[in-house]
Amino acid sequence: MDTASRVTPADVTVADVTLAHIRDAAARIAPHAHVTPVLRSRSLDALTGAQLHFKCEQLQRMGAFKFRGACNAVWALPDDVARRGVVTHSSGNHGAALALAASTRGIACHVVVPEGAVRAKLAAIERYGAQLHHCAPTIAAREETAARLQRQTGATLVHPFTDPNVIAGQGTAALELLQQSGGVDVLITPVGGGGLTGGCAIAARGIAEGITVYAAEPEGAPDAFESFRRGERFTDITPDTIADGLRGTIGEINFALMRANVDAILPVSEAEIAAAMRILWERLKQVVEPSSATVLAAILRHPAHFAGKRVGVVLSGGNVDLDALPWSQS
Amino acid sequence: MDTASRVTPADVTVADVTLAHIRDAAARIAPHAHVTPVLRSRSLDALTGAQLHFKCEQLQRMGAFKFRGACNAVWALPDDVARRGVVTHSSGNHGAALALAASTRGIACHVVVPEGAVRAKLAAIERYGAQLHHCAPTIAAREETAARLQRQTGATLVHPFTDPNVIAGQGTAALELLQQSGGVDVLITPVGGGGLTGGCAIAARGIAEGITVYAAEPEGAPDAFESFRRGERFTDITPDTIADGLRGTIGEINFALMRANVDAILPVSEAEIAAAMRILWERLKQVVEPSSATVLAAILRHPAHFAGKRVGVVLSGGNVDLDALPWSQS
Repeated sequence: MDTASRVTPADVTVADVTLAHIRDAAARIAPHAHVTPVLRSRSLDALTGAQLHFKCEQLQRMGAFKFRGACNAVWALPDDVARRGVVTHSSGNHGAALALAASTRGIACHVVVPEGAVRAKLAAIERYGAQLHHCAPTIAAREETAARLQRQTGATLVHPFTDPNVIAGQGTAALELLQQSGGVDVLITPVGGGGLTGGCAIAARGIAEGITVYAAEPEGAPDAFESFRRGERFTDITPDTIADGLRGTIGEINFALMRANVDAILPVSEAEIAAAMRILWERLKQVVEPSSATVLAAILRHPAHFAGKRVGVVLSGGNVDLDALPWSQS
Repeated sequence: MDTASRVTPADVTVADVTLAHIRDAAARIAPHAHVTPVLRSRSLDALTGAQLHFKCEQLQRMGAFKFRGACNAVWALPDDVARRGVVTHSSGNHGAALALAASTRGIACHVVVPEGAVRAKLAAIERYGAQLHHCAPTIAAREETAARLQRQTGATLVHPFTDPNVIAGQGTAALELLQQSGGVDVLITPVGGGGLTGGCAIAARGIAEGITVYAAEPEGAPDAFESFRRGERFTDITPDTIADGLRGTIGEINFALMRANVDAILPVSEAEIAAAMRILWERLKQVVEPSSATVLAAILRHPAHFAGKRVGVVLSGGNVDLDALPWSQS
């Protein structure tokens, strides 16, 4: 595991992330990450007919589960490698997460951001002490810029969701949830690139093989759904969803991990996401971002999968623009 | 204490609420109320220079601390009295709290509401099973209607903040906070009618005499501030504040309790309340109502009172209209 972060995605196999790796990650990030609370709600249990255990990653440091994976990746590096810093391309939560994780180890962090990225998110990345590198808003430009920075500085690339250390780190959310809740019948997470879903599915299935694992996905970014339907990874989509954290398309390793450990992808519409987000704000009193709301949207849309069951629900984050709420734009 | 709820406000003295009463209340409400979590935030500690312990009453049942006092009042009634039900006049959180409390004991609840009250709040009161009684929007009409219902049904009046059992119930929030936080140097609550502030101040001072107790109050509803300044209860104001939970004017017993146990009233402006509310949403990821935000507003406006100290901060509730947020109305 200590060298896995330097393995390129093409080299990894499903065996690269196991429950043991996730337990290692939990120990590694313990001094830095929060054990976030699990909240219950009588009114949401009544609404869904299920027993819901909400894992509150909006209360994680920097406001999203992403800190877990970034922190594990940063602290898994050997000293001499870490000294040269880390680099990633992300204008969202992973950029801020890596910046904060790097600061906990006192190492440099470079974040490649496309022109046009949201200013508030860039400010957060800078606040955590990372150096921003602007580039054209294309995937090619982002990868080239990151590769150049790697060459120039010797920094290690930490991919937002294909890095096995990142996936193992994200899995610690499920590890905690299963302990805190006293066990669940069903686990559901949002799916974007598949880091959270892959890691959590391995943790859950590793601990209790009988747990059913679902992933909620916006209909406007249906790469995981299509990949499952076709039986092969399919990423030829243009994401169009308010769930900005789920616009990344599923990675190779992530698809492999999910095929082995996830029972189904549950699609939800934009209107369902907005309605579920509002319910979480009103009933659970939690500021969650649209990505987090996909899981409750899926439970409400597919009630037969959840009724009467103990359900672990991963709320992925709470970094939302309070000036642009989905219900204030109609 | 078991008979105190039938004492009229004019008869009560400061001695009617003590730490022992608050401990009794804690035991009485334990089967029904949540022990709400205490949240910390590195970023808010950095912002204020203090160590803040946020008592999350927005996560209490029905979304506010009001359930504590209502629950204590309802369960303190002898069986034969309880059987005839309870009545109050409140279009806000206390009405919903009493409705829910009555439902936990399976007794009738009558809530007198003035015409023009917010529909969402009335719906909540009805959802918890209470009967609404509409009246003209004057204090005289509310009191007359409540008195008539008392005569007709034999129901016990449970005042929102002058009832000693209500005050004792609210004090349980501070009791828990002091246990959960491991002790504080300073305690701050919002002040409206003074039920929360009075109860919490008694709990805090009863446990540790040296605790400094502040109450945050909107400049647009300065009855507590003026009462403290004049040395006598002053309620001749017309409240004008977004903190709808703090529009009630301070009660006689509440003023007496506060004079004995509160160090100062800290005024905050409407703009400061709105800004603090936004900070709590963004950093603490908690949906809190404007009343709850007054406490952080006071800490930010009066930093010298808090810097370097362990501060217990009571967030009073989270029942807010998501269609009318203070920062979306400019």
